[in-house]
Amino acid sequence: MAQKVRLVETVLRDGHQSLLATRMRIGQMLPVLGQLDDIGYEALECWGGATYDSCLRFLNEDPWERLRTLKANVKNTPLQMLLRGQNLLGYKHYADDVVEAFCKAAVKNGIDRIRIFDALNDPRNMEAAIKYSKAAGAHVQSAMVYTISPVHTDESFLKVAETLVEMGTDSLCIKDMSGLLSPYDAFSLVSTFKKRFGDNLDIDLHSHFTCGLASATYLKAVEAGCDIIDTAISPFAHATSQPATETMIEMFKGTEYDLGLDLDKFIPLVEHFRKVKTEIAEEFNLKPASDVIPAVRRYQIPGGMLSNTQNQLNEMGMGDRFFDVMDEMPRVREDLGFPPLVTPTSQIVGTMAMMNVMMGDRYKMVPNEVKDLVRGKYGKLPGTVSEETRRTIIEDEEPITCRPADQIAPELEGYRADLASKGYNGITDEDVLTYAMFPEVAVNFFDANRK
Amino acid sequence: MAQKVRLVETVLRDGHQSLLATRMRIGQMLPVLGQLDDIGYEALECWGGATYDSCLRFLNEDPWERLRTLKANVKNTPLQMLLRGQNLLGYKHYADDVVEAFCKAAVKNGIDRIRIFDALNDPRNMEAAIKYSKAAGAHVQSAMVYTISPVHTDESFLKVAETLVEMGTDSLCIKDMSGLLSPYDAFSLVSTFKKRFGDNLDIDLHSHFTCGLASATYLKAVEAGCDIIDTAISPFAHATSQPATETMIEMFKGTEYDLGLDLDKFIPLVEHFRKVKTEIAEEFNLKPASDVIPAVRRYQIPGGMLSNTQNQLNEMGMGDRFFDVMDEMPRVREDLGFPPLVTPTSQIVGTMAMMNVMMGDRYKMVPNEVKDLVRGKYGKLPGTVSEETRRTIIEDEEPITCRPADQIAPELEGYRADLASKGYNGITDEDVLTYAMFPEVAVNFFDANRK
Repeated sequence: MAQKVRLVETVLRDGHQSLLATRMRIGQMLPVLGQLDDIGYEALECWGGATYDSCLRFLNEDPWERLRTLKANVKNTPLQMLLRGQNLLGYKHYADDVVEAFCKAAVKNGIDRIRIFDALNDPRNMEAAIKYSKAAGAHVQSAMVYTISPVHTDESFLKVAETLVEMGTDSLCIKDMSGLLSPYDAFSLVSTFKKRFGDNLDIDLHSHFTCGLASATYLKAVEAGCDIIDTAISPFAHATSQPATETMIEMFKGTEYDLGLDLDKFIPLVEHFRKVKTEIAEEFNLKPASDVIPAVRRYQIPGGMLSNTQNQLNEMGMGDRFFDVMDEMPRVREDLGFPPLVTPTSQIVGTMAMMNVMMGDRYKMVPNEVKDLVRGKYGKLPGTVSEETRRTIIEDEEPITCRPADQIAPELEGYRADLASKGYNGITDEDVLTYAMFPEVAVNFFDANRK
Repeated sequence: MAQKVRLVETVLRDGHQSLLATRMRIGQMLPVLGQLDDIGYEALECWGGATYDSCLRFLNEDPWERLRTLKANVKNTPLQMLLRGQNLLGYKHYADDVVEAFCKAAVKNGIDRIRIFDALNDPRNMEAAIKYSKAAGAHVQSAMVYTISPVHTDESFLKVAETLVEMGTDSLCIKDMSGLLSPYDAFSLVSTFKKRFGDNLDIDLHSHFTCGLASATYLKAVEAGCDIIDTAISPFAHATSQPATETMIEMFKGTEYDLGLDLDKFIPLVEHFRKVKTEIAEEFNLKPASDVIPAVRRYQIPGGMLSNTQNQLNEMGMGDRFFDVMDEMPRVREDLGFPPLVTPTSQIVGTMAMMNVMMGDRYKMVPNEVKDLVRGKYGKLPGTVSEETRRTIIEDEEPITCRPADQIAPELEGYRADLASKGYNGITDEDVLTYAMFPEVAVNFFDANRK
């Protein structure tokens, strides 16, 4: 009998991204890939925006080469990646032809499952990625980013989910990037989904331990029928990462939710990744995140933003204004129609809040990203922006209501020609995508490796 | 309406004991005692064996003076201590007159609630402490140490609990010092207690996050009717400490288990204890425990023992025998009648396992503590020791079956005379107790402070 509840292992992606700035090298994965493949995971999460960027920027690795190596060494377990919808792995909307080329290349190089999300939960920003990922043969898992606001309810998430199902998603994910989802809210949300979609659509919960809730949240989600939970092997678990894989196996052992996995197999894996953790911390002089920060839930911002904001304010000699900025954050978020706070909306709202406090006069100076958010360029906002706020920010400009990418003409050949003009050797289709998404980092990487 | 579920805050005792070797000074507590008192806790855990020892040994503080200072600054919230039954705060059984003097002095100096446990869950080792604590006017909370073995069942724990209730305990605690208790086992155990004792006897769950389970375990325990859970303010939470106080407040907020506490009040407390954590780590060159170690559950030994055992083996040049020792541990534990592993039984079983592996011949050399365990000197063992094992360890000696302390004549005046002969100034009754429990450390402390 197939196990009722299954695990996605994140140690190769979110585990080291959350705790150690995404600095794990392929050489630190290779010795245990066979053992990971042998566990019986639903999927191995191993690729995404930060791993891609970090490969090029810090590790002098070609992310596509890493993917092929992973695929060659993981024979049985699906490889999963995280994709920011129309943003792909970058920070802006790309034209549909770039999205198509990327999804094809990802699958061709080894990706089996693509988890697709959009910062505003606007399905129109996920539509092309869903279509092209499915066409390329991947399992598509559409993710909704979880947040708390008066306009985010079980019903509003269900409405998004229904659209994603209509678009052909193979499974659904609740992506709780700040670890805000409480156990009883998870029970309610997962129950809502299971009631609507029945047993034919897997529900995956991806949470972070940031606020200290995630393991209890997984428990209640599973009690509500959640099919898949995302976990990280213990040395790369907890703090701002996922709950520990072994803990979840222990937690459900002997119950109707028993994961059916062999804990003995984790002994050498834990030993390996404990060493890797120490190696990375030493090589890059990093202190692994270790604290649990329940206050993240209070301000409803990602864990990293708390310390980043404090640091930025300190640098500007405004360290004593920290709580003013924190208190301004939810007000700005409300003004802007309650966007979930995740890349890039977290930075946009955070910057606006900081500027409002600094200027002592709200929206006196407004960054272009904030204007674009109000202009509808990032997609449909979850709530409404009052006419007064809209006028303050973009005066009498009319927000767009179409799918943002509809306004973007095909781009791929432009990137290809641009890159070709730089005279590197052996540039591939994958390199063109690298250049499209990370132009500066790509050029540095090609300077070092394609000359 | 009184809150259904209440919190015991451990930051002043188990929080820093678990994460930072019990090194918090009274000066690091004083600035926030009023704020802690204002939260609405069921009790503040603030005193116990390790805090007492550490005061004298490392901090040059008189533990009794610390207690009086705490009491003077905490007007509303009961102060709670942890007591090792007939061992008091030391490592051997004391005569009943010492137990009586200690319980009286603890209450006189400020303790309101005394949590009493015995490493073997033998109520006879808790009987005198219960009696004298109650006589002194304290709320007595009897604790059962939780462990996993074939002879430890809901029914076996219930039997112990019934005896403790007969002895007059005011409430019951499940003391899960290694964080082994899983959520569904907690549900079952707490349900068993609630069913038997009804609503008139509070059940308190004290767990550690060591294996990553405790927050989910608290959730299921509360669903089963658990009345009190032990938590630590977030900078001193998680890893090998308790789940975070603020997280538990968030977790139950808005549910029928709502704790009714104000999260705003925690902002300055978290800031304070975050600084204190850094101060302690720097002053004593300590690295706060930060990892979650699910393997602790596999070997069913306290978290600290894993690293201690590895270190000891490394020092003896036997680091490669680690897993042999780990595998021998449960065999020794079984041979010795499945004692729970907590001070002092964890050390006794650990040493025996290590010697068995080192000698290559089991029980060839047997430390006296192991013999005393088999002799019944520590109390009644939970399981049985086979005649073969008994003969191997104590030959034809007959184990005792009486309450171990029945064999100990009054000791207090002997300690008093012994200490008086050393010629210190201003020795108090409390000093005599210090000397009885920690003779060497006491003398060093008196040399520095009573001359």
